Amino acid sequence: MENEAYGPRIQKLQERMAAANVEAFFTLAPPSMRYLTGFTGEEGYLLVVQGGVHLILDGRFTTQAQEECPWVDVIEYTGHFTRSVAELLVAGHTHWLGFEKERISFVQAEQMRTAMPSVVMVPTEGMVEGMRMVKDAHELDMMRAAGRCADKAFSAMIRQLKAGMTENEVAALLEYEMRKAGAQGTSFATIVGSGARGALPHGIASSKVIEHGDVVVIDFGVNENGYMSDCTRTVALGEQPADVLETYAWLLDAQQLGLSLIRAGASARSIDTAVRNKLKEHGLAQYFTHGLGHGVGLEIHEAPRLSQGTDAELQAGEVVTCEPGVYLPGRYGMRVEDSVIVTADGFESLTQLSKELVLP
Amino acid sequence: MENEAYGPRIQKLQERMAAANVEAFFTLAPPSMRYLTGFTGEEGYLLVVQGGVHLILDGRFTTQAQEECPWVDVIEYTGHFTRSVAELLVAGHTHWLGFEKERISFVQAEQMRTAMPSVVMVPTEGMVEGMRMVKDAHELDMMRAAGRCADKAFSAMIRQLKAGMTENEVAALLEYEMRKAGAQGTSFATIVGSGARGALPHGIASSKVIEHGDVVVIDFGVNENGYMSDCTRTVALGEQPADVLETYAWLLDAQQLGLSLIRAGASARSIDTAVRNKLKEHGLAQYFTHGLGHGVGLEIHEAPRLSQGTDAELQAGEVVTCEPGVYLPGRYGMRVEDSVIVTADGFESLTQLSKELVLP
Repeated sequence: MENEAYGPRIQKLQERMAAANVEAFFTLAPPSMRYLTGFTGEEGYLLVVQGGVHLILDGRFTTQAQEECPWVDVIEYTGHFTRSVAELLVAGHTHWLGFEKERISFVQAEQMRTAMPSVVMVPTEGMVEGMRMVKDAHELDMMRAAGRCADKAFSAMIRQLKAGMTENEVAALLEYEMRKAGAQGTSFATIVGSGARGALPHGIASSKVIEHGDVVVIDFGVNENGYMSDCTRTVALGEQPADVLETYAWLLDAQQLGLSLIRAGASARSIDTAVRNKLKEHGLAQYFTHGLGHGVGLEIHEAPRLSQGTDAELQAGEVVTCEPGVYLPGRYGMRVEDSVIVTADGFESLTQLSKELVLP
Repeated sequence: MENEAYGPRIQKLQERMAAANVEAFFTLAPPSMRYLTGFTGEEGYLLVVQGGVHLILDGRFTTQAQEECPWVDVIEYTGHFTRSVAELLVAGHTHWLGFEKERISFVQAEQMRTAMPSVVMVPTEGMVEGMRMVKDAHELDMMRAAGRCADKAFSAMIRQLKAGMTENEVAALLEYEMRKAGAQGTSFATIVGSGARGALPHGIASSKVIEHGDVVVIDFGVNENGYMSDCTRTVALGEQPADVLETYAWLLDAQQLGLSLIRAGASARSIDTAVRNKLKEHGLAQYFTHGLGHGVGLEIHEAPRLSQGTDAELQAGEVVTCEPGVYLPGRYGMRVEDSVIVTADGFESLTQLSKELVLP
């Protein structure tokens, strides 16, 4: 990787800076710092100017950064980071500084403004996120690897899953298998929702015991070398009544329809609409209480969204989820989610996991 | 728990709001929402007025909130959250809204300002964090439980640790044992730094194989019911040369000195200074490149800090870490960290783990 990957990204950012009419660009978002420099620390400040790249770090991270990105100017700050940023800008006679209005806190913007009265702070949106939406070949390989790692972990877990385990134990086992498969961690708090708890779309694993007959929603992701996987499977322990099987079949149909519409140029909203209409045919639309999907990459939730609130057109090289769900309060929940690479004429799935409901 | 715990917290917040001259208070920080209401979801917006408490959530979280905090007015929003907040404020004829300037992003502040032109937005700092610094009896029990859970997990892991495992495998094992001991997850990315990697104070576990003779820094924490533990131990696989043993003995001395100075009324900075001076006696101060400690509770890093940059006096009921480290670039790192409850005349440790360097 080294500068072969990061050099072009920095160059592209510098072009975007020029187009946005700013001389310098500042970010404190760890995924953006990682994307632009390879620095993997969880705290720092990146300043990109036309002539160079500066990482402003405290003593915990400087050695790490010097190893991870030797081509970057690593500055160790003491006191407040704004002082180092101000010094760099003044030394470079820089007046127009772009900052990420969604990433920086109200008070950080205020502190920067106070520390550098001669600098005009320009709020920007999506400067780096916009670059990160379409993944390059190396990133797609990383996403594929994360997907394989997640598949491996889930398959290992599912062989050991049985009634009598708590949701927490299942999550523990799954996360252990993720690590064994090479992940550095999870991409979010693992969701294991069994029985009525499955109807809480974001209820993380609890101490509830999974019983024979339960329908169990498992939404999980690995973080492997900074790239996130995202996948949901719904499994049932033991035979299910006809209405549950039927609902699941309708949900699968709806997901399949959603996937079949994914391709470069497709309207993200229209895919969400189509899936919602499909569920409506079976009277299930009101139980699908969230958007259909989202981008995924260095962060678990990225642009674009697949929902009613977007005008985005999908582009080749984006990685998006397709995850319709049906949540029947007090009864059970179901969700099926695949992450896929958008291609010119369809998609490439990042998971090969079975969608069979009832475990053998 | 229910309203017995949350009622008084809301009441205290309302008093602080009155003192800050705001009629309403807004937060989107999950730990603060959890502290004030018991809602454990990872995304939402809490509005507290003198007459009531409103949680503004999207469809993923409403059922969960109704179960977790039935005494709170749960509002499901669609579109943008600012509209629901604006409607509540206008309906209540509320003009002065306090918001958390460190928690809200620049753009969120802007969006709120735009959505509610008749409301004056007042930046506040530490409104809830200030309440959370001193833990109540229930919280201290939760912190003790998190500490016990972490001890149990570490003890189970250490019995299985041996040369030839990768840092990742050790982290995987430790996190698995955390879950088995009752944790819902980690409080931060587990650090396992062996050999020269131990000199990266925040290098998370990697694929490096731990070798016989390595000194290994393990910094780990559980998240148990929302409360975080934080502990570091340094262990060596195999006998060590005299200089390593000596450095470790000095580090332990310095930590012991730090702990001995912790009590209600003590100056947080002076404890950091004392430990730094102790390390200086042995020529090690320049290798201790971070602050001595920090508060811990619903978040892994809370007020107060034990560092050169604070004027805080410790208060009984705070939980703080004491974690000096020595990092010799290219050679090895060492850190020893305990989390303790500050008491009137000393401290109560939240860990009982051994500080023996060389594993038997």
